[in-house]
Amino acid sequence: MTSADGDDTGLLAPGWAGSPAATATGDTAWLQALLDAEAALTRAQAALDLAPAGAARAVTRAADAGRFDVRSLAERARAGGNPVIPLVGDLTKAVGEEYGTYVHRGATSQDIMDTASMLVAARTLDLVLGDLDRTAAALARPASEHRDTAMPGRTLTQHAVPITFGLKAAGWRALVLDARDRVRTVRDSLPAQLGGAAGTLAAFGAYGASDPTALPAAYARELGLRAPDLPWHTLRTPVADLAGCLAFTAGALGKVAVDVLTLSRTEIAEVAEGSGGGSSAMPHKSNPVRSTLIASAARRAPQLAATLYGSLAAEDERPAGAWHAEWEPLRDLLRLVGGAARDAVELAEGLRVRADVMRAHLDLTHGLIVSERLSAELAPVLGRARAKELLTRLAAEGRPLAEAPELADVDLDPTHYTGSAGALTDRALERR
Amino acid sequence: MTSADGDDTGLLAPGWAGSPAATATGDTAWLQALLDAEAALTRAQAALDLAPAGAARAVTRAADAGRFDVRSLAERARAGGNPVIPLVGDLTKAVGEEYGTYVHRGATSQDIMDTASMLVAARTLDLVLGDLDRTAAALARPASEHRDTAMPGRTLTQHAVPITFGLKAAGWRALVLDARDRVRTVRDSLPAQLGGAAGTLAAFGAYGASDPTALPAAYARELGLRAPDLPWHTLRTPVADLAGCLAFTAGALGKVAVDVLTLSRTEIAEVAEGSGGGSSAMPHKSNPVRSTLIASAARRAPQLAATLYGSLAAEDERPAGAWHAEWEPLRDLLRLVGGAARDAVELAEGLRVRADVMRAHLDLTHGLIVSERLSAELAPVLGRARAKELLTRLAAEGRPLAEAPELADVDLDPTHYTGSAGALTDRALERR
Amino acid sequence: MTSADGDDTGLLAPGWAGSPAATATGDTAWLQALLDAEAALTRAQAALDLAPAGAARAVTRAADAGRFDVRSLAERARAGGNPVIPLVGDLTKAVGEEYGTYVHRGATSQDIMDTASMLVAARTLDLVLGDLDRTAAALARPASEHRDTAMPGRTLTQHAVPITFGLKAAGWRALVLDARDRVRTVRDSLPAQLGGAAGTLAAFGAYGASDPTALPAAYARELGLRAPDLPWHTLRTPVADLAGCLAFTAGALGKVAVDVLTLSRTEIAEVAEGSGGGSSAMPHKSNPVRSTLIASAARRAPQLAATLYGSLAAEDERPAGAWHAEWEPLRDLLRLVGGAARDAVELAEGLRVRADVMRAHLDLTHGLIVSERLSAELAPVLGRARAKELLTRLAAEGRPLAEAPELADVDLDPTHYTGSAGALTDRALERR
Amino acid sequence: MTSADGDDTGLLAPGWAGSPAATATGDTAWLQALLDAEAALTRAQAALDLAPAGAARAVTRAADAGRFDVRSLAERARAGGNPVIPLVGDLTKAVGEEYGTYVHRGATSQDIMDTASMLVAARTLDLVLGDLDRTAAALARPASEHRDTAMPGRTLTQHAVPITFGLKAAGWRALVLDARDRVRTVRDSLPAQLGGAAGTLAAFGAYGASDPTALPAAYARELGLRAPDLPWHTLRTPVADLAGCLAFTAGALGKVAVDVLTLSRTEIAEVAEGSGGGSSAMPHKSNPVRSTLIASAARRAPQLAATLYGSLAAEDERPAGAWHAEWEPLRDLLRLVGGAARDAVELAEGLRVRADVMRAHLDLTHGLIVSERLSAELAPVLGRARAKELLTRLAAEGRPLAEAPELADVDLDPTHYTGSAGALTDRALERR
Repeated sequence: MTSADGDDTGLLAPGWAGSPAATATGDTAWLQALLDAEAALTRAQAALDLAPAGAARAVTRAADAGRFDVRSLAERARAGGNPVIPLVGDLTKAVGEEYGTYVHRGATSQDIMDTASMLVAARTLDLVLGDLDRTAAALARPASEHRDTAMPGRTLTQHAVPITFGLKAAGWRALVLDARDRVRTVRDSLPAQLGGAAGTLAAFGAYGASDPTALPAAYARELGLRAPDLPWHTLRTPVADLAGCLAFTAGALGKVAVDVLTLSRTEIAEVAEGSGGGSSAMPHKSNPVRSTLIASAARRAPQLAATLYGSLAAEDERPAGAWHAEWEPLRDLLRLVGGAARDAVELAEGLRVRADVMRAHLDLTHGLIVSERLSAELAPVLGRARAKELLTRLAAEGRPLAEAPELADVDLDPTHYTGSAGALTDRALERR
Repeated sequence: MTSADGDDTGLLAPGWAGSPAATATGDTAWLQALLDAEAALTRAQAALDLAPAGAARAVTRAADAGRFDVRSLAERARAGGNPVIPLVGDLTKAVGEEYGTYVHRGATSQDIMDTASMLVAARTLDLVLGDLDRTAAALARPASEHRDTAMPGRTLTQHAVPITFGLKAAGWRALVLDARDRVRTVRDSLPAQLGGAAGTLAAFGAYGASDPTALPAAYARELGLRAPDLPWHTLRTPVADLAGCLAFTAGALGKVAVDVLTLSRTEIAEVAEGSGGGSSAMPHKSNPVRSTLIASAARRAPQLAATLYGSLAAEDERPAGAWHAEWEPLRDLLRLVGGAARDAVELAEGLRVRADVMRAHLDLTHGLIVSERLSAELAPVLGRARAKELLTRLAAEGRPLAEAPELADVDLDPTHYTGSAGALTDRALERR
Repeated sequence: MTSADGDDTGLLAPGWAGSPAATATGDTAWLQALLDAEAALTRAQAALDLAPAGAARAVTRAADAGRFDVRSLAERARAGGNPVIPLVGDLTKAVGEEYGTYVHRGATSQDIMDTASMLVAARTLDLVLGDLDRTAAALARPASEHRDTAMPGRTLTQHAVPITFGLKAAGWRALVLDARDRVRTVRDSLPAQLGGAAGTLAAFGAYGASDPTALPAAYARELGLRAPDLPWHTLRTPVADLAGCLAFTAGALGKVAVDVLTLSRTEIAEVAEGSGGGSSAMPHKSNPVRSTLIASAARRAPQLAATLYGSLAAEDERPAGAWHAEWEPLRDLLRLVGGAARDAVELAEGLRVRADVMRAHLDLTHGLIVSERLSAELAPVLGRARAKELLTRLAAEGRPLAEAPELADVDLDPTHYTGSAGALTDRALERR
Repeated sequence: MTSADGDDTGLLAPGWAGSPAATATGDTAWLQALLDAEAALTRAQAALDLAPAGAARAVTRAADAGRFDVRSLAERARAGGNPVIPLVGDLTKAVGEEYGTYVHRGATSQDIMDTASMLVAARTLDLVLGDLDRTAAALARPASEHRDTAMPGRTLTQHAVPITFGLKAAGWRALVLDARDRVRTVRDSLPAQLGGAAGTLAAFGAYGASDPTALPAAYARELGLRAPDLPWHTLRTPVADLAGCLAFTAGALGKVAVDVLTLSRTEIAEVAEGSGGGSSAMPHKSNPVRSTLIASAARRAPQLAATLYGSLAAEDERPAGAWHAEWEPLRDLLRLVGGAARDAVELAEGLRVRADVMRAHLDLTHGLIVSERLSAELAPVLGRARAKELLTRLAAEGRPLAEAPELADVDLDPTHYTGSAGALTDRALERR
């Protein structure tokens, strides 16, 4: 095998392989972000007259991922424990003698790694935000179209009382909007990182800056990131915030997915994915693959987020392990959620709803699905205890309630017992 | 043994036993919150003329945890899978015949469980917020007192460049304030839950409400919680948000703890807890127990949060397992963080700082702690490569740099190489 | 509220409240195990002539949990970070002046805590083993009774090919036996802990033992635990092994539960729990509560195990946090699994199987459930491609396959296409 | 960017990039394992006269990863949710018309994916076992060389009583051997997977096998894997067992790592890695990089294992999400542990031990490190209470104990108070 054989192209990850998020988080994208961070650092120093404009131009020109050997960098990263150390060497060479000394000047590896993470996160979250918006928009359609489509509400797997599909879809949309709001807040807060070896900005002073505290803001401006309040090399709020919003998003989309999976079951079949996945051996199968892959992401994201939350407890000015433990889980989360959001768009846009099947299922319990209503209406007449007794007896008998003489005057139509589902749906759809 | 022998009084939990958070989250507190939720429900119905004022008074009067047998409720909860089912029976009896029918009217168990969770969370977060504020205030003191106290910055366990203790403490405080901000946002957003059997509010209509959608807001008012946008029985944003802010807080306090643990080591001893914990066998020991317990909480919280994030993917109108899996982890998180915040106050208020030891440690590497500065200053003179060569050679020789003739003119005083630590500390302390 | 108000009686834990495992893991049981460990230590010293027999008797007599105030111990544990420190004081007093000095002699808190954990684990695992055996026995019945009961096999929520309920139940049983084997192996390996302050047994020498290395084995004998190879104060194999077998057991039972939940759905109803749980508002509901609670345990156990695996990386001779982080998650796991195993017995013993419903569902896809067989049989006749084409067309048309003239001679009876299900079931049931 | 830009070459993973485990788990290796599984399936059928020998040869010849486009397969996997579906098509084409129909005959995608996972796991665990053996061998050396090298035992970060470095290293070795034993047991149990669409082996019968139950064993023989008792498509014991042994191994190595990290601290410096990692800006730095990367793996592995344990609860005959959620975490675990084991070899073989520094540190507490011994020896003379009082007073005074007249006759030499460390070390080293 060649050295490329250790590569991961997404063969085990149909959830994100080939997605824009995969490209945005791949090693090449990360390498480019590292280079963007280096270039911005030199430009920021030039902007503050701490480096010649020529250096800024030279570093920016050299900072092109296509010119570097990402696999070699990966392997050389082992010696010092991070890829910035070999990258600085390669970049310095690429910049050439005249301006090479301005590469990485005053910075530490973590400044570059952390800043690159934020760039990659920002770029991926932009994709996620777009897909969440599209998903929410797509879900608004069935929510309003099926505002009054009654279906069984299910609790602990059993029919409970009627709901509407509109309210269910509106609820999905509300969760997706909750995710969007949380992602957007975090997206807009992603900071650049600049602190030098231990967060004091001391080296920038040694290299001549009269006020090194002006540098982080200039650096952030070059990158389109937020200026940090403090160097956050061991104050990992940005990473934890990413963990939170990504785990949330995976779970929010996961809710939609597990509902679709349930409602797609052969026996239920109230909804179907637009185009199901096939099987090599069983020509008839049409599997809810989009939901399956989203559900799979929702199973993994919480534990990846846990690792990131665990890295908050980072000792010293750079921890020996906690920081290194962040890199892959953060990328995995970004990818998984990026892929799940892509699948959610397809799922939402393609979802087929079978109102007739929903209607038919409302009769499966022979009227018992409105037993709550009967309890409420019979109680004043018969007393609470006798009403309950009557309904329990009728339920045990298994006969259609419509045949029970005691219920002759009661409205047993389940589509008439959807409560405020319509009003709640309307209200939910007002949210933008 | 008696039936009380299964009880958990905190014997395995020195981190939260006996704390206000323990009381605020204990079974009695939870029972009271369940009762508060039931009482508020009847009062809200009375406020909208859906129940007589007498019923509201009767239920409120009966809703006193002291009158119920919590252990019996716990055991009877097994049949239906949640404690509200037996509680409704007991409460109805306690209210008596006249108004018993107004107990729990139109609601489902989940309305009461979820609302009670939010009440317990709100009460516990208030304690946490108070302790985070006190911790931040206590940390401001060493941050400003030691604004200019130089100490070794450490990366990957090794001395790197000097920092100040002021900046370190200011960073701790910034993290604590980040936690406070996140907790406060979530605290202020905790919603009441009211949806009925499957979230349509249908039963309230069956009991006579002309507009059941007015009820949740009235209910929330009675409880001092936010009015929900939608019933959130399977839209678990509030629980996930709690998971996030609590995991964050545990980790933020964990950062302080692991730093104190490191700096307390016998060989380092730059700080010490106000009053260390003893040992039965070794009279001399003074252990950093507060930090130990906080660090322990920080190790557990992320995985508890993961379980809660995992419950976002909740199928149907009430999932068979995901909802039930939330209750104990949510309480565990509230308790752990409540206990850790209590310990953080003591830790921060009692922390002893040994500036002289910090100063002495700056010399442990015989000047190498300022090698970054030397690199920066020698490079223009000797060229980058030769400067690095010289320093590497001197480092390998192990001789004090001050004795190297090549460095005769350079300022090797590590306390002069703290960069912008002071300015950054000042800026960080401006945050309120 | 009183100081008891922080207690946890199981109100939030219908999965384990009131179970034998709850009693076996409660604070009183843990306190008794701590006392058992102390008493065994003195007895072991007496057995090796390092303490008078009277001391052994006196400590054993005093070591009765009923004589100690568990809540007070819990609160006093805070100072030193573990409950053994105050307990040694109280026990010494209880033993009295003559033999008080023999209490805890030579030991460290961790010796007692760890040993007590192993005692509690052993006692709880014995309960679990009993319940796993009963569950496996109960599952053998439907496995053999329904050896030839055909039902739909389902993959990615869709009907795939027929299986038998016998094979499904035999698979459940195999998993339960896998769990039983793993639990038994760990149960039989649980070691006593004895090392003294830092694992060298030095204090026992100081108190006069000529060969302190004989003591751990004598101690283990008194306790019915395995003699440790080495003190394992920071070699946490026993705790990690517990984590593994308990997470496995929760998941194995969880597989049974999620299958029962699916098959219990109103639309599927191929199985039902023996006695479902009710609902306060909906008299007809019969919820699969046992499965729900088991499924809930299966969602939580992996993350609790993760915390315990995380504690393997325990620095020094007693870590500051990792050890303390083990106690509650270990108990939680023992309880959760103990409760889930209790529920599994009831679930397995009470399970009702509806062969007629299974049979009816085999026809839901109008013959397509045997399309794999048709592919296999038609391919040699028509060629693979044309056979697939034909079946895909027929599937799309939605007509019963029996009506397709091309399939006139093919056996479409799904009960004839259960492959080796019977033989596999027989083989699986041979395992003991 | 090109489609390769989403690839992962290990840039974020200095812990495993470029390692044999990386190659053994890369997409190409996984693809080859998928192809090996397909080829073995045809060969097994040929061995049982269910397929012509020519087909077995043709499929085996075609099953060469180099002939397939892994990236294209990854992207086409999206439609059906797994890469086997497109692979079967490509392989069939590669085999050619004559024998193409024998490709994948009777199998389902999961048979191939699961079997391939086991092959990849077996190959990677063999690497891990080799490295664990080497690590254990390397640790035996310092354990015996430093059998009597006294050093401070540390508990809760503070000096407790003396230990020996030999005992510490012997403990590390014992943990590594525990890991080796657990990995070996799992390695030897890894089963092939063969069940067909829903685990009944039905298709093999349809294709003419008279006893399809003979096929799994024949298949396993071709693969060098264990013959499965039952198809385990939703009985995920093998995956859970892998999770457990890998999380254990990461944690066991993590214990060594966190100890080395602590002992390497600038202020402690009792050990050092053979060759530390450098820093771009600070020429003097020699970071414990191997330990850092191992510690990082130990932080991540438990949560990855949790996801796999969570997948035990897999509904139906193929779950919609739980199965898909296994693939990447299993690979991540194999890689992380494979990389950590590689690093552990280097760490153990290169470790430098500074006995003189250890000796010097024993005096840091001015004799208090033997206070436990003093307690034991003074108690009979002065009484327990007065002895404790005396030592507490002396500790508070901070004077060297050697100067205290009350202790004139006591042996205060800490190297004389290492208890049974030597004997325990000898015993531990006997284990093979």
